This record gives sequence, C-alpha cells and structure tokens, in this order.
Amino acid sequence: MKKSDLKQMLEKKVLTFDGAMGTMLQRMGLSTSECPEIYNLHNREIVKSIHQQYLEVGCHIIQTNTFGANKIKLQQYGLGDKTEEINRQAVLIAKEAAYGKGLVAGDIGPTGKFVYPLGEYSFEEIYQIFFQQAKALIEAGVDLINIETMSDIKEAKAAVMAVKDAGDIPVTCTMTFQENMRTLTGADPETVATVLESLGVDVLGVNCGFGPDMMIDIIKRMSQVTDSFLMVQPNAGLPKLVDGETIFDLSPEKMAGYVEGLIQLGANIIGGCCGTTPEHLQQIVDKAAEMKPVQKKKISFSKLASARKTLIIGDTYETRTIGGYINPTGKKYLTEMIKSENTSVLCQEAAKQVEAGAHIININLGVDTLDESKVMKNAVLEIQRSIDAPIALDTVNYHAMEEGLKGVEGKALLNSTNGKEDALHQVLDMAKRYGAAVVGLTLDEKGIPQKAEDRVRIAEKIVTAALDKGLRKEDIYIDTLVLTAGAQQDLALECLKAIRLVKKELGVKTVLGVENISHGLPNRSYVNNAFLAMALQAGLDLPIINPYHHNNWTVIKSTDVLVGKDKNAKAYIQWSNINKNTASKEEIEETKEKEKASEAEKL
Amino acid sequence: MKKSDLKQMLEKKVLTFDGAMGTMLQRMGLSTSECPEIYNLHNREIVKSIHQQYLEVGCHIIQTNTFGANKIKLQQYGLGDKTEEINRQAVLIAKEAAYGKGLVAGDIGPTGKFVYPLGEYSFEEIYQIFFQQAKALIEAGVDLINIETMSDIKEAKAAVMAVKDAGDIPVTCTMTFQENMRTLTGADPETVATVLESLGVDVLGVNCGFGPDMMIDIIKRMSQVTDSFLMVQPNAGLPKLVDGETIFDLSPEKMAGYVEGLIQLGANIIGGCCGTTPEHLQQIVDKAAEMKPVQKKKISFSKLASARKTLIIGDTYETRTIGGYINPTGKKYLTEMIKSENTSVLCQEAAKQVEAGAHIININLGVDTLDESKVMKNAVLEIQRSIDAPIALDTVNYHAMEEGLKGVEGKALLNSTNGKEDALHQVLDMAKRYGAAVVGLTLDEKGIPQKAEDRVRIAEKIVTAALDKGLRKEDIYIDTLVLTAGAQQDLALECLKAIRLVKKELGVKTVLGVENISHGLPNRSYVNNAFLAMALQAGLDLPIINPYHHNNWTVIKSTDVLVGKDKNAKAYIQWSNINKNTASKEEIEETKEKEKASEAEKL
Ligand SMILES: [Zn+2]
Ligand SMILES: [Zn+2]
Ligand SMILES: [Zn+2]
Repeated sequence: MKKSDLKQMLEKKVLTFDGAMGTMLQRMGLSTSECPEIYNLHNREIVKSIHQQYLEVGCHIIQTNTFGANKIKLQQYGLGDKTEEINRQAVLIAKEAAYGKGLVAGDIGPTGKFVYPLGEYSFEEIYQIFFQQAKALIEAGVDLINIETMSDIKEAKAAVMAVKDAGDIPVTCTMTFQENMRTLTGADPETVATVLESLGVDVLGVNCGFGPDMMIDIIKRMSQVTDSFLMVQPNAGLPKLVDGETIFDLSPEKMAGYVEGLIQLGANIIGGCCGTTPEHLQQIVDKAAEMKPVQKKKISFSKLASARKTLIIGDTYETRTIGGYINPTGKKYLTEMIKSENTSVLCQEAAKQVEAGAHIININLGVDTLDESKVMKNAVLEIQRSIDAPIALDTVNYHAMEEGLKGVEGKALLNSTNGKEDALHQVLDMAKRYGAAVVGLTLDEKGIPQKAEDRVRIAEKIVTAALDKGLRKEDIYIDTLVLTAGAQQDLALECLKAIRLVKKELGVKTVLGVENISHGLPNRSYVNNAFLAMALQAGLDLPIINPYHHNNWTVIKSTDVLVGKDKNAKAYIQWSNINKNTASKEEIEETKEKEKASEAEKL
Repeated sequence: MKKSDLKQMLEKKVLTFDGAMGTMLQRMGLSTSECPEIYNLHNREIVKSIHQQYLEVGCHIIQTNTFGANKIKLQQYGLGDKTEEINRQAVLIAKEAAYGKGLVAGDIGPTGKFVYPLGEYSFEEIYQIFFQQAKALIEAGVDLINIETMSDIKEAKAAVMAVKDAGDIPVTCTMTFQENMRTLTGADPETVATVLESLGVDVLGVNCGFGPDMMIDIIKRMSQVTDSFLMVQPNAGLPKLVDGETIFDLSPEKMAGYVEGLIQLGANIIGGCCGTTPEHLQQIVDKAAEMKPVQKKKISFSKLASARKTLIIGDTYETRTIGGYINPTGKKYLTEMIKSENTSVLCQEAAKQVEAGAHIININLGVDTLDESKVMKNAVLEIQRSIDAPIALDTVNYHAMEEGLKGVEGKALLNSTNGKEDALHQVLDMAKRYGAAVVGLTLDEKGIPQKAEDRVRIAEKIVTAALDKGLRKEDIYIDTLVLTAGAQQDLALECLKAIRLVKKELGVKTVLGVENISHGLPNRSYVNNAFLAMALQAGLDLPIINPYHHNNWTVIKSTDVLVGKDKNAKAYIQWSNINKNTASKEEIEETKEKEKASEAEKL
C-alpha cells in the first residue's frame, strides 16, 4: 500500500484497527508460558479465526500475530532462528483472512530490552532486530506496519527507522503511557508526538495502558502540538485478577462511549488493545462509522524535544535561546576538559546553562586532536540525561554528528548545514532520517556573501533542498551569519536585513550567534545588547548566546514584552523580582532624584 | 520683482551687485561727521552719479543709499522723523539711474544696537525699526531688499522678518565675520547659513570684513550646509590709514582674481563692499560674465543651530539626542525650581545635559500655576547663553512658544504641533515665520490612533500642511508617540512600524520620547535599552532621553557602530575609554573564565 493511499483514506473516514490478539489467543487456550507467535506455525486456524472475527464486525485493518516476533523475544522461547518464518507465516494467515475484506498491518512490539546506556543493546543492534522483522513482514506482503506498545522513545526511534529502511509502505506507531502520563522512560505525550512526527510516521498515537479516560487526555495533548494523523488503541479498562483470571472492566458499550470524544479530539484510527474483543470492536466500528474525522488545524510553530519534554518555538511564545557555552573557542579550561573527555564537566555546564535560562544546549566539541565521534556520542548520551532541554549538535564532522544523533532521545537541532553541495545533502539526509531539525548557514563554496540578497539566495537553496527531502518547513532554521562589527562594519545591517528577508520570503525560523558581533570591541555587552534587540525585532527566533551573560537576558526579557510575546509583561515582572539586586543605573538615578526632592522639601 | 523671477535669473547667471557707496561719497566730499543718507535729500545728483558709474561698468543690481537709514541711526543726526522720506528719496534716485539698465536693491544696514539681553532694545522694537524702513523702501518701488553687514544674528532675524512682513519681494541678507570666522556675537558661517536659510531669505551670504581670502573660506563652509543661493561682497582688502586717509590695499585686478574661486564654490551674486569702486566692479563684472553658476548639490541632512554652532542631523552622522531632563513631570525639585522662576537651575541642568552628551536641550516648563510665556522667554534667553546646543521649545501654550521663539538666536525645534487643525496651523506658521524646525505628533482631535497606518495618515497631513506653508522637508520631524508597554503592550510595535512607514513614505525625520515605554515596569532601563535599539534601527533620528541615564548612551553609541554611523567604531572606542569604569557583567564573566583557565593550568 502506498503512503498516499492511506492518507487519502484517512482524510475521508475514521479507520478501525482490530482488538486484542493475546486476549483472544488466551481464550482459545494459549497459556502464559507459551510463545503466542508459535501459533503462526502450529495453530494457523486459531489465528485466522480471530482475524475473521475482527473482520466480520467491520474492522478495516487487522494486525498480524507478530507482537513478540522479534529475534530478542523469540530467543527467549528458543525460536530466534525462526524469526523470519514466524513473521512470514503470520502475514500469510492474515492475508488469507483479510483477502477482499480489509487491510493487513504487520504488528511490531517492543523487544523488552533497553537501548544503551539504560540497557546493553546498542542503538544499531536494536535497529537490526527491528529491521529483520520489518523486512520479513514487508516481503510477505503486509499493507502497512504498526509499531505499538513502545515504552521507550529511543526503541521506537530504532523501530521506525528500521521499518522505513525495510520498505516504502505506511508506518503507524503508538506508545504506551504510565499513570503519570509519561512513557516508561519519561516522555510526555507532546514529546512522543513530536519525535514520532519528526521520524515521518504516517500515523502516531497511543495504545494499551490505563484505558480510554487517559487516552482522551493524551490525544488532546498530542493534537495540540501535531497535525499528524492520530491513532488510539485503548485497553478495555484496567486489568483485574478475578479467580486467578485477568478480567478487564470496560464493557463494549462503555468503550464505545469514548469513541465520539476521541474522534472529536482528532483520532483518525481507533482500535482496541488488551482485553478488547470482537464484541468491543463491533461497538467501536459502529460508532466510528457514524462520524467524520475532524479537520486538522495546521500547526505553525516549531518544536524540538528532550527525552521528556517538548520545546515550542513560535511567534506567540517567549523567545527561546540556544545556550552556546559548550564551545571550546577561546576557553582554555573547557578545551582541556573536552580533550580529557571529561563529559561530567560538560554535563555540569549544560545544567548550569539551563538553570541560567537557556532553552536548548549547543554541543560544540571542536578541538583538533579529538576523536570527535566518540566524545560526541558520549557527550550526547550523558548531557541529555543531565538536562530537560533539547540539544543542538554543533559540528562540521558529519560522522560525529551522526554518532551524536544515534544517542539523541528527543528531537535535536543539527547545527549546521550550508549551501555547499556535500554539506547540504549529508546533513539534510541525516535530519530526515533521525528526525531532527536543521540549521542552514548562508554560506557556500564561495564563502559568505556580503549582500543580504545573496545570503537569502543560499537560504532559499537550503530550504528548497530540505523540503525536497521531505523535511517540514517548521524544522528549517536559517543562520544569516554574524560577522564582527569591528572588522566588517557594513555587514551588521546586511545580516539583519537577511533575517527580515528570510522570514518574509522563505517563512522559516532563524538562528544567530549574536555575540560574535562585538568581537574585538570594548564593553562588548553594550554592542551585543543593541544588536540582539535589533535582531529580535528583525525576526530572530533563536539567538545563540552565552546564558551566563546577564545582559542577554535583560534584552530578551524586555523584547518579549515589547513585541508582545510576554503578555502583560508577566514573565518580565516575575524575572525582575528574581533579579532584584541588578538594579540599573536608571533606578539609582531616579532614587537620587527622589532624595534630592525630599531634601529640598526639608529646607 | 517676484521671488521666482530672481530665482530664474540666478539659475542662469551670476549676478553682480554694485560696490561701495560710502567710499564713493567720501571721494565726493562726504565728511566722517556727516550723515551719508542726507545726500538723498540734498545731494541727489552725487548719489545718482555714483549709481550711474556702477551701472556703466555693468553691475546688474545697484543698492539704494540707505545703509544707515533706519530710525535709530538717523536719530543720531536728528533725522529720525525723516526716516521714511530719506528712504523714499533714495529709491527714487536709484530708480532714475537704473531705469532700463539694472535692478534696485533697497539697502538695509544694522541699527548699531544690540537686541535684549545684550542691549536694551527688545526684539519687537528692533523689528519695528526695520519694518518702518523696509516698508518705505518697498512702497517706493525697490525690486528687492538687501539686508547687509549684520553682525548679530538676532538683529538679522528681526530685519528679515520685518522685510518679509513689509512686502512680498526678494530679500537677500549678508553678515560680516570677525577674524575668528565668527560674527561679532559668535555665529560661525554654518550657523549664519542655517539661520538665514530657515528664515526664507532668497540669497544669503557674507559681506565686508577681512577681504576676499576669508570670503573663500566662509562661502565654502556655507555651501557645505545649504543649497540656498549665495552672495558675497568683499572689501577691497583691509583698510589702512595712510596720511590720515583710509586706503584699501586690493587693486581691481587682484580682487577680480578671487571671482572665479568664489563662483566655483557656489557664489551666485558678487559685489563689493568697503573700498570697492567702479574700477573694481568693472573687473568683477567682466570676470563673472565669463562664468556660469555651479549647480547646487541638494543638501539632504537636517540642521538646527544654537547662537553659535550648527548641529547636523543626518543618516551618515552619529545619532543626535534631545536631552529631556528639563520637564517637571514626576520631578518635585525641578517643579519647585520652575515655580520659583529659578532659571539658573535650568541653565545648570541644560549645561549638565550637554556635558552628558545631549545634542539638543528640550525646555518643558509645564507647571500649572506658571506664567509660562514670561518664564519661557527668560529661560530661552538664559539657557541659550549657557550652552552651545540648539533648544527645543516643548509646550502646548503657543503664546509661550512664540515668546520663547523671539528669544532664540539660532534655529530651534518646536515641540510640538499635531494633527488638530488649530495646533497645526498656529505652530507651522510660527515655524515658518521664525525659522524653526517642527515636531509633529501623530494625534488629532480623535486622540492617538492605535494602528501605525492611521498615525502615518496624521503624519502625512502634518507634512503636507508644512510643505504648503513653505517649510523645508528637512525641518519636519514626526513623533509617532510612545505609549507605555505596561498599559498598552500591543502598541509598542505599532509605534516602531509607524517610524518605518514615516521614513519610507514621507521621508522626514523622526523623534521619540523613548523612555516612556517602560513606565510602570521594573528595571526600566532594560526595557528602554531594547526599545531604543529597535527604534534606532527602525529609523528614529532624534531620541528624547534623560541624558543622565548611562544606559541610553550604551545603546546609542553601540547602535551607531552597528548601523555604520560611527565609522570604524572610532567614537565608540573613544567613548568606551572615557567610560572605562562601567565594565559590564560580560567583561566580568570573561575575566572569571580567564582566571579559571589560569587556575586550571597551575594545577
Ligand atoms: Zn495492550
Ligand atoms: Zn564693508
Ligand atoms: Zn558695504
């Protein structure tokens, strides 16, 4: 099935997936110690009859009996070498049942193992496990793949990437949430949506877990940050042990009661997870058939994510900043720490920058003698566990960039590509593959153009190439490049003009390493302040700053008031209260004036 | 003669005035104790023959024998009551001589008295003296009026205003300079040009004084600040007493040697002053006839002036500022000082503001109970003697504004008019009459519009009305009005947008009381800094600031570097050296980083 065919179907109607396979197999005699997927080889009729029951009640899509059919899980039953055969047979059974009546989704569940450093499997190893299963499913002829019940976003990433590499068919992906509304490894609904969207899944959502009540909340939160198609497969309520048997407490009628709400919140596919039966699905199918999918409202802001939290970057939000302190240039001590691979110092600086207000942490390890790939990989793994902020991978060593990307749990920013042919394609391909956003510098083989218009032409080339590769416009950031006002004075205004043009003509976000402007001048903060205010007003979205420089915050917080990003100056006043002891000379002057006045009154 | 006729003639060729009348009369027997103008009544033929001699050598314009024919001077000979008759007869003699051969300029010289406070005559009294003479000359039929040998700019102002009120004919005006290149009361050539231009004289220039060498320098300096027609009447060198007789040392040939240079520098009219004879003029006329006037290059910057110095306000100059401290709002002590008419405190504050860097001093005396006209008049007279900076008269009491204007020696800024019909016409008429520039606020009978476009519509109305009244575009400043970001947050950007539109669509200068933006917010200087930087980049020409607030200068000096007004950051670096002890937190941070690095090296 082509991705575009699924898209067309979803625009027209709400589709239904089937219900639980495991629950049904247990009803048919599967014991808890048995491998459910062995039925694909030895109990084909049972599996087929379950598929048939779901098709008979009207489910549009059935899932192969392959939830645990990855090599890691099958090995636990001594069936590792049968992985491909089990997947292939499952597809054949489902296709026999579905022929002319519905679509077949190849079902991929979690490995049950964590990716390094939480577990022992490397990202590449987990990826290979999923690739093998996906390849077998796709070659056997599934219409689409459903990755489901994922509880770790990094494992989900590996699975999505593997499926996409295995074949060009639609892929849906759902994750499960704990009672705290986070996945097992901590991602919230916005972050799951953001990361899965960035990986290019066709439908994303939530399954299993704590029943439809919580699903309502999760789908609602997801729909506020993504305009992707959404999917939900609730359990039939919560499992209870009654007389030694697992019972789910939601009746088919009760479950169907949630369908309308879910669809109104944006669900495009509804199915059932644990405890759901053909009776449940009958009700869900009937209810869904009465409704039309709601129109997606276009999400115009941009998003990055840490492992747990999503950062929204948009015109109506307070200005976000990239903390640029982790960069050895001109920093002797930091250079030494990087050379000695002292990642704990980097973690400290990352955390300190976040505390100082930085929203995104830039990682630049540009020290000549370094094995940058190795240090970048470790730095990413450790830094992202130290902070709750997205990271930006700042390197021109694209191997190091990819090693870093393999470690990223959230959605990172690649800093950077540029207009040079090789840089452009290598980095954009990586961004697309790993689900990252990308910064494009307005320079090319000929260097940095002086004129704003020429920089915008390079920006346009970058944007066009990125869109051609399937990146979202919201994930493209242009850096119009700050040169020092001391050495190239005329170019300060060209840089600002380029920002204006990029915003107006290309409509993408902008990044700028603002403090470079004052290099070589005295009282640098004065020049930085003026330039930052101008740049923000010109449309700069993400200033890269040293967040330890207090003056940057005075400008950013003030500008947010002036441009209306900080409604009623609420954040500014709060920040001012915290920064009370930084009273300005103006305040001191005003106090003096008041004192002078009261003195005069005494006379 | 119509002004436009003279203009057309001057565009085509260099005109010549005649030479000395006094020198010739002395040759014909006038003694130093005699009134030269009495010859108009009793020695008509002598006067007529002198005119004829100048006409015979080809002078285009002869001047009536009325240099000292004002009531104050004539009274010294007991001829005060003959003022009108003497002027009338002088015109009749000149017209008889010139009939069909040349034009007659009514000659007006200085009264020999200073205007208050240097002398005892009020501005109005001196004005009346000139009005009487000008009226007599014009009614008798002169083609134009030449006000000449003025050594005090305020007296020249009174004379020009009187002539313009007396009749609608062309008026030329020249002043004389001391060896220090200043008029007797201190105005430099730029300031003479600026003030006379603003009064709307048709031709301005220099006469008498120290011979043609210095004229070259003066005309050169004048031509760099004005595109008005220029006029020069040098003496025949320096006077020497030889055998009890006054002799001038430049021969006719030597004087003619300067003609080419003067015309190349922009002189449009050349004549002679003390010591020049028909022989001198013969040479000058022949030389001038060989040449064409040079094309005026359009002056695009704006100008204001103190009594002595001219301030240029333009895109390639460092940002100029209006010191707004003299304003009682919120200042209890200053309010008391104004109430008690303590102008010496105002003078101190004016001087202190200039020392702090302000380029223009705003005078706002808005205290309810005050006789504002009286205090404004005194304040202007005293403040302008305390500082070498132009002043801005900030009041809505137009009577007080006019009283202030009568005291202004240079070229002031009227702060302000607005889109209300009565305000508009009253203030623009005053600006035109007294030769002032004007600030127009973008508000009208309906208040301050919210939208930038609506403010620009009011600005356009003001600009159109000002141009209709004959003001120069360079003398119109628009204030797009800063409201407080605390109370009306959305309007901060509208104000900046309005600046951009005013600059782009109307092409006039802009003024803004920037610090109002932060009223009611904590850490006001932070908000002010960001807003000021944005406003300057949007095209703000003249911020009104409290010059004692150091932070304003950090933004202005930095912005001048960034927008290229301060080439090679020369002024910024100089200013930074003076302000060394204001090291910013950034510098402190950098020092810390360096210390950390060197510590680490020691370990
Ligand atoms: Zn489940
Ligand atoms: Zn003279
Ligand atoms: Zn003269």
